[in-house]
Amino acid sequence: MKALGRHILAEVYGCDPTLLNDIKHVEKVMVDAALNAGAEVREVAFHRFSPQGVSGVVIISESHLAIHTWPELGYAAVDVFTCGDDVDPWIACQHICDQFKAESVSATETKRGILHPWGPLQQGASHKTD
Amino acid sequence: MKALGRHILAEVYGCDPTLLNDIKHVEKVMVDAALNAGAEVREVAFHRFSPQGVSGVVIISESHLAIHTWPELGYAAVDVFTCGDDVDPWIACQHICDQFKAESVSATETKRGILHPWGPLQQGASHKTD
Repeated sequence: MKALGRHILAEVYGCDPTLLNDIKHVEKVMVDAALNAGAEVREVAFHRFSPQGVSGVVIISESHLAIHTWPELGYAAVDVFTCGDDVDPWIACQHICDQFKAESVSATETKRGILHPWGPLQQGASHKTD
Repeated sequence: MKALGRHILAEVYGCDPTLLNDIKHVEKVMVDAALNAGAEVREVAFHRFSPQGVSGVVIISESHLAIHTWPELGYAAVDVFTCGDDVDPWIACQHICDQFKAESVSATETKRGILHPWGPLQQGASHKTD
């Protein structure tokens, strides 16, 4: 069954707390993850919380990557949502886990925008190009 | 089982295509959805694609809301991820569906950052306050 996109929700455990709390590092990791997977970066928004934690999103032509970090738990909630066939979200997910030195990861992939002839979405959607 | 957050993935069908393609409207709907649910808005990033479609994210203190629209299909992929007990993500989700005049919605809620004494995350995480 064809879908518009693939959305990974990853629970990333046992990360380096210092890296999870460094907004510049978090942003670089997320942008590099998008680029490594072959995505095109459109918008970037990150925020650092007090006393700790970073939230951020990278909007790509193919959808988005998001992260929320809890340095005090060594934990990050990571999303990688990609549309089309040219970008593999698992490449981005792997990059993020590697860069935060994660000890364990639990991840699931959900299809988004499932296309089928008898349902609400029919095939023939045009790709986003600009 | 206690979790840090709740993440709704909503497949929103049968929306008004004109509304889905209006970046100002999409941004207002998403920000208002966050505020109506009692969330605190931190960062906003939206992008309009050619020939159609809008992608955008609202980072809130409690995590994020995201949307990707396909006006040509009347479809939007919506995420509402909230942490803590003070914000109900379903209020935000309902607001978004109402504002785009959705005919049908398929949504699931996933727990993020499950806390349990024998696992990688123990209880006692501090809340983000700034």
